[in-house]
Amino acid sequence: MSVLIVGSMALDTVETATGRVENALGGAATFAGMAAALFTRVRLCGVVGEDFPPHELEALSNRGIDLAGVERAAGKTFHWSGVYSHDFTHRETLDTQLNVFEHFHPKLPDDWRDSEYVFLANIHPALQLAVLEQTKRPRLVFCDTMNLWIDSQPEQVLEVLRNVDVAFMNDEEARAICNTHHLVLAGRKLLTMGPKIVVIKKGEHGAMLFSQDDYFVAPSYPVEMLVDPTGAGDTFAGGFIGYLDQTGNHSPQNLRRALVYGSIVASFAVESFSVERLRSVTPGDIAERYDRFRRIIEYH
Amino acid sequence: MSVLIVGSMALDTVETATGRVENALGGAATFAGMAAALFTRVRLCGVVGEDFPPHELEALSNRGIDLAGVERAAGKTFHWSGVYSHDFTHRETLDTQLNVFEHFHPKLPDDWRDSEYVFLANIHPALQLAVLEQTKRPRLVFCDTMNLWIDSQPEQVLEVLRNVDVAFMNDEEARAICNTHHLVLAGRKLLTMGPKIVVIKKGEHGAMLFSQDDYFVAPSYPVEMLVDPTGAGDTFAGGFIGYLDQTGNHSPQNLRRALVYGSIVASFAVESFSVERLRSVTPGDIAERYDRFRRIIEYH
Repeated sequence: MSVLIVGSMALDTVETATGRVENALGGAATFAGMAAALFTRVRLCGVVGEDFPPHELEALSNRGIDLAGVERAAGKTFHWSGVYSHDFTHRETLDTQLNVFEHFHPKLPDDWRDSEYVFLANIHPALQLAVLEQTKRPRLVFCDTMNLWIDSQPEQVLEVLRNVDVAFMNDEEARAICNTHHLVLAGRKLLTMGPKIVVIKKGEHGAMLFSQDDYFVAPSYPVEMLVDPTGAGDTFAGGFIGYLDQTGNHSPQNLRRALVYGSIVASFAVESFSVERLRSVTPGDIAERYDRFRRIIEYH
Repeated sequence: MSVLIVGSMALDTVETATGRVENALGGAATFAGMAAALFTRVRLCGVVGEDFPPHELEALSNRGIDLAGVERAAGKTFHWSGVYSHDFTHRETLDTQLNVFEHFHPKLPDDWRDSEYVFLANIHPALQLAVLEQTKRPRLVFCDTMNLWIDSQPEQVLEVLRNVDVAFMNDEEARAICNTHHLVLAGRKLLTMGPKIVVIKKGEHGAMLFSQDDYFVAPSYPVEMLVDPTGAGDTFAGGFIGYLDQTGNHSPQNLRRALVYGSIVASFAVESFSVERLRSVTPGDIAERYDRFRRIIEYH
C-alpha cells in the first residue's frame, strides 16, 4: 500500500493579500505528497537542486514519504514566483526558473516499478509518459495537467489522457481541452478520451466526478481563512488518491468519499502559505471537517 | 396558504447560442410566480401594458396565480432585450424600455394585505418598500435585488434588507454589497444587515444558505441542455418560497430542502426560452429530479 507520485518540487515566492513568502516549499508533487501522506505511504519522484533545504527533505521523509526517487541535481531548484490579486481571483506569474527541472529525466527505483497507485502530477506530459513506461501494470494511474501543457503540447496531453484511469483537471483546463464552457458536457467528453474517471476541480465551487456509471458533485469545504491558494489542486488530488489507497476500495461510493477527503485536505492547505498548515494537520482535524462537511451539505 | 409576489412583468427579446425569442413572457415576478405556483397559490402584483397578450394572463391565472394585483396600464409593457455570449458566461443588455413600469405604484388589493409570505422580487427598492408598507405583519418577507439598484440606490437597498427576513441575491450582488470576494464572509456580513436568512445564488455552482445557526451549501442541479438562463434566479427564489409556503415549516432542515427545490425548479427554467419549460413541469418531474439530485450529492 503506497502511492507513487511524480511531479514538480519547487521553491516558491508567493505574495497574496495576507502576506508574502520567499523560497517556500512548493511544487505539485510536494503538495500532493504531503496530502497523500495524511492517509498512506508515499513514494516521491522528482528533482531538487543544491539549494533545496536538507531539513525540508528530512521533514518530508519524517512524514513517511520515501524520497528514493528524488534526484539531487547540480544547480538550483525549480523556482516559481507569483502574486495573487487582492480577492484571490487572479494570479500572475512573475518569474519561472526551471533550473534543474530543465534536464530532468525521472528514473524510478527498481523496486518502485510495481507501484499500484501512480499519480502523474503536474509536470511536462513527456515526463509523465516516461514515468508510466517504467511502471509495471499499476492498479490505477492518475494524472493532472495544466493549461501550459494543454496549449503547448496538446498531443502529448491527449496521449497521457489515453493512458490513465483517473484524470484530474481544473475547470479552465477541462473547458480548454473540450472546447466547451459547459462542465457537465466537458466531463462526459473527457470520459471518451481515455480516463475511466474524470474529476473536475472548481476551486471554491467544489468538484465534480464523472464515470461511465456515476456523476457526483460536491461543494468545497467552506474556507474561513484564505491565505494562499497555491497547491490547492495538487493537495486535493493527493488527498483523493491517498484516501483511495488507504481504503483500497474503488466503488463509486468510495470514490465520492475520496473526493470529499480531497476537498477537506485542500481546505487546510489554503489556510497558510506553502505547506505550513499541512504539516500540522492531524487525523482528528480531518475527521472533524469530514463530519462538519456532512452536516453542511445534508438536507433530507 | 399563498405567496404574494411583487416585481417586474415583462416582454423579453432574448438571443442565446441556441436561438432567439421576441416579446416572450418575462420579468422577475412572472418567473417567480410560475415557480411558486408549482407548490402553492400565488398572488401576483405588477403592471402590464396594453400589448401584454391576454392569453398569457389567462395562462397565469389557469396555474392558480391570482392576478387581482396586476394593473393593466395604458401604454406598452416593460421590455427587456439582451444577448448572451456563446458560452453563456456574459450577457449584454441591448435595450431596456421601462414603459408602463416607469410610473408604476404597486397597490395591494385590500384582502391581500394580510398575506403571510411576501416576496419582494427584483424591482426598484422604493417599490419594494411601498409594498411592504401595505402589508400587515407578514410571517416571512423575502427580497431579491439586482446590481443596478445596489449601484444606483444603495441606501434604499439597505433599507429593504433591514426589513426582510430572507434575502436572496446572486454572488456578484453579495460581493458588491459586502465589498469582499469571499462569499462565506459576505453571507455572514449580510446577516448583520437585517435578514435572518441569506441565500446566495451562484448559478451553475449552486447556492449557499446562511442563518445565525446554520450554513448550508448545495451544488446546482446539473443542467444538460442550457437554452436561456434568463429568470433562473427568480425561478429559484419562487420555488424556494413556494415550497416553504406549501410545507409551512421554517426549520433549518426544511429551509435546506427549499433551497434544493429552488435549484431544481430553476434547472427546468433554463431548458427553454422564457417560461416555456415551466409551463409543462409536473410534480412528478420535480420529484424525479429531487431524487436524482439526492443520489448525485450523496457520498456516505
